[in-house]
Amino acid sequence: MKLHDFRVSGFLFAGISAGIKKNGRKDLGLIYSEVPSQVAGIFTTNAVKAAPVRVGMERIKRGVGQAVIINSGNANACTGKQGLKDARKISSWVARGLGIDEKLILPASTGVIGVPLPLRKIEDSVPELIQSLSPDGWMNAVEAIMTTDAFPKIAMAACRLKGKKVKLCGMVKGAGMIRPNMATMLSFLVTDANIKASLLQKMLTKAAEVSYNSITVDGDTSTNDTVLLFANGTSGHPQLTHMDRDGEAFQSMLSRVCQNLAKSVVKDGEGATKLVEILIMGAKNREDAKKAAYAIAHSPLVKTAFFGEDANWGRILCALGHSGARILPNRVDLYFNKFPIVKDGMGMGGRFEEEAGKVLKEKSFRVTVDLHQGKGTYLLFTTDLSFEYIKINASYRS
Amino acid sequence: MKLHDFRVSGFLFAGISAGIKKNGRKDLGLIYSEVPSQVAGIFTTNAVKAAPVRVGMERIKRGVGQAVIINSGNANACTGKQGLKDARKISSWVARGLGIDEKLILPASTGVIGVPLPLRKIEDSVPELIQSLSPDGWMNAVEAIMTTDAFPKIAMAACRLKGKKVKLCGMVKGAGMIRPNMATMLSFLVTDANIKASLLQKMLTKAAEVSYNSITVDGDTSTNDTVLLFANGTSGHPQLTHMDRDGEAFQSMLSRVCQNLAKSVVKDGEGATKLVEILIMGAKNREDAKKAAYAIAHSPLVKTAFFGEDANWGRILCALGHSGARILPNRVDLYFNKFPIVKDGMGMGGRFEEEAGKVLKEKSFRVTVDLHQGKGTYLLFTTDLSFEYIKINASYRS
Repeated sequence: MKLHDFRVSGFLFAGISAGIKKNGRKDLGLIYSEVPSQVAGIFTTNAVKAAPVRVGMERIKRGVGQAVIINSGNANACTGKQGLKDARKISSWVARGLGIDEKLILPASTGVIGVPLPLRKIEDSVPELIQSLSPDGWMNAVEAIMTTDAFPKIAMAACRLKGKKVKLCGMVKGAGMIRPNMATMLSFLVTDANIKASLLQKMLTKAAEVSYNSITVDGDTSTNDTVLLFANGTSGHPQLTHMDRDGEAFQSMLSRVCQNLAKSVVKDGEGATKLVEILIMGAKNREDAKKAAYAIAHSPLVKTAFFGEDANWGRILCALGHSGARILPNRVDLYFNKFPIVKDGMGMGGRFEEEAGKVLKEKSFRVTVDLHQGKGTYLLFTTDLSFEYIKINASYRS
Repeated sequence: MKLHDFRVSGFLFAGISAGIKKNGRKDLGLIYSEVPSQVAGIFTTNAVKAAPVRVGMERIKRGVGQAVIINSGNANACTGKQGLKDARKISSWVARGLGIDEKLILPASTGVIGVPLPLRKIEDSVPELIQSLSPDGWMNAVEAIMTTDAFPKIAMAACRLKGKKVKLCGMVKGAGMIRPNMATMLSFLVTDANIKASLLQKMLTKAAEVSYNSITVDGDTSTNDTVLLFANGTSGHPQLTHMDRDGEAFQSMLSRVCQNLAKSVVKDGEGATKLVEILIMGAKNREDAKKAAYAIAHSPLVKTAFFGEDANWGRILCALGHSGARILPNRVDLYFNKFPIVKDGMGMGGRFEEEAGKVLKEKSFRVTVDLHQGKGTYLLFTTDLSFEYIKINASYRS
């Protein structure tokens, strides 16, 4: 991918250092649509919501937006009424600089919890930020939203809608959603497609279900998680207002882009050495399949066994057993990639265990469980649990 | 405590090596009441139940038992119909040796999952095991049930019931319930009190609620967890059949003994460096308090912060936020021991944070959360998450 690939008609991007991060890296980003844009959003389900999330949830109801202002280095979470005031103030400065209505600005923050934003630094930097907006500013914006990320995470795709070529570019930050203090997941997507906000919201929700909502590193949901999708319509095709064949084409592209972004977050999971796909099949229903998948993905015993490349299927059965999903232990089949290791709840032993065990030496593999209870399936992406995870998270603040 | 303290009238104990464990340590234990005894039991809630658990659950329905035969080194779990046959066979050998009805024998196993029991070794050892039964055999039995335990875990207490002195002795094995492959939690308690099985079961259930069911290291429940309480009545007082003042006295002693045993399991949690009490107050109800406590205790982020002695209260608020318990973020208060660190959902900062932070340097401390939503409380015992945990569990089988 070349930088040029991340131009999207009508969008400008910027990212600069405002001195919020102590290390002098970029920490203030701006994404701006030159025309008012349809917008859809998904926000954290954590009951403790950061101030910018609360402001964003309120503003997005209108379905129209024109810019997102993001700071890293400070989450503006657990900051009370002052936090809300601060989030609104920042968007008012950006609105004034851009000459647009403040209500068209969506704020987002990521970083340390419980510390007031350094407002003065941000106010002083807004003019420079707006000054540096450019169609080629994509990577600057990406850098500005990064915190513990080991690498920038971006994806793009194109398709045709009603005869016009449309483009979709996305960025995400987060290393496994595992650091509420610093590594919220933020994702911003922009497209020049023309899609009505209500339909756009349905599409984003559907895409998130198979991407951002299907990854887990350690089960924590941050106070700041936010996904925003802007569709400014500058490609010029007639507006999509309901799901049709063109809608399906866009949905498919959107889901794929989101899934790629989400997988890159898992890959960057703190201390992760393995990318593991957990596929549950034959559950009573989807809800049961989900419970089973999460029980496996969240079991520290299973995760450490992955890290140790130990084909310890007993731990997986044990996790299934307390997942709450309906199972008959003597009906469970288990596979590592294509290799069977458990049949009817019992280990196949010998050669089978050896073959399946080899799979765990790979960097990425799939664990498939067939419960033989019904037609429910669920696919979840997760990681192992390593020494590095403990190291990073034990010494994070000090 | 002296060995002599663990004599209980009418009970004999034994523990020998049958060669099930590769290292030659004791792995076959027997607890025997010379007279038929009232018995109560609690078994794993995991849907995947080991064969001995299934046999035990069936037999305990009659409320009468006389012995428990325990092997370590092999869990007899995920072993299909053969596993059930094996568990029954072993108890038939013991029954024959003791000259009692097979139905009075309760089996228990702990160790590796998915491997058939070495039946011949066990059959060959039963005569020696029975031969070595002794009123002073307590510690031999304790050793025989240990697996990854770093130290033996025992507790005893005495009280008066209806004018007679009664004794209660308990043993437990398990290092944080965190190794389904090897470290199931097994606990056996014996008393010479005379208590009707139905009442005994109620008492044990109540005691377990504040002890074995209130500890967690990593949220995994094993396939073999079993708690058995024998009351053989040899102290000679009239039988307790319903809860009265004497019943309350016994209940209180039983709860205390179980809590001490349970805490010792947490202290021995694999790789644990801290024993942490999570106290939730002011929840809407007890169920909510429990959800909140477990969300904190199971958050790897919170646990690694404890390990790193980092007063990272943002992670605790974050865990509360996704716990599912009803909370108002700006009503939450948080304390480390007696020191306040969060008031109305916001960090108190400065001196407060410093004082509270010092608490984390201790080996054992309490985290108190007041949700100000109602009167629900819950007390949970847990540990931190350390390098050692990963080390032990990543390399366990290989």
